Amino acid sequence: MIGRLNHVAIVVPDLAAAARTYAEGLGATVSPPRDLPEHGVTVVFVALPNAKVELMAPLGPASPVAGFLARNPAGGMHHVCFEVPDLRAARDRLVAQGLRVLGTGEPQTGAHGNPVLFLHPKDLHGTLVELEEVFD
Amino acid sequence: MIGRLNHVAIVVPDLAAAARTYAEGLGATVSPPRDLPEHGVTVVFVALPNAKVELMAPLGPASPVAGFLARNPAGGMHHVCFEVPDLRAARDRLVAQGLRVLGTGEPQTGAHGNPVLFLHPKDLHGTLVELEEVFD
Repeated sequence: MIGRLNHVAIVVPDLAAAARTYAEGLGATVSPPRDLPEHGVTVVFVALPNAKVELMAPLGPASPVAGFLARNPAGGMHHVCFEVPDLRAARDRLVAQGLRVLGTGEPQTGAHGNPVLFLHPKDLHGTLVELEEVFD
Repeated sequence: MIGRLNHVAIVVPDLAAAARTYAEGLGATVSPPRDLPEHGVTVVFVALPNAKVELMAPLGPASPVAGFLARNPAGGMHHVCFEVPDLRAARDRLVAQGLRVLGTGEPQTGAHGNPVLFLHPKDLHGTLVELEEVFD
């Protein structure tokens, strides 16, 4: 069912410093920072040949990653995103097996403009997993 | 400098249960469990079209992931691995910029038989980063 690993999302306390480390230290191609107010984060995309790393910092007072950063002040890996061809079919299959979808259970629009859902980390062995519908 | 995202490593408390979730729940292709006594872990490789997820559980009393699991009893994302064409050149470049390499600073043989190094998470904004030398 799941296809490609789309991205790994990393929350960092200082987005400019992290972008510099990936660009100048690791020699990767990084995007300019982009505010996503509807997601409460500012992101920098690190483009690797086969996948992306998304560096995220909280944006606004109700950022969904503020709590993560409070628990992990140095930053850390936040979630991993897998692509699926049909998000609702994937959700229905997982829910039928007892896995929980966060929020309303309905797909939302993710940072790349595609429909996304998040699975409960307790059902994925401690890891927050995002599913993103990507058309090939 | 860094190339492909080789894998994301996830530590889990119950490797068989996690392998089942990825195989039966997410519909991915998973390998049989493989003991790596020289690394103190048992691993299951989840093969995605563009990258791997490595599910890891502690093996033996001195496992390097035992402490992680003690701090994160439900499991969680442990590290991300990027490929480099020349590991010593990558190390020298990073060390010259003040980044710290874990252990002796000399490449070790990783889970895939390739030379690997780990960078200090404090220098990578809270994330443990593995560099693996992969010949194209």
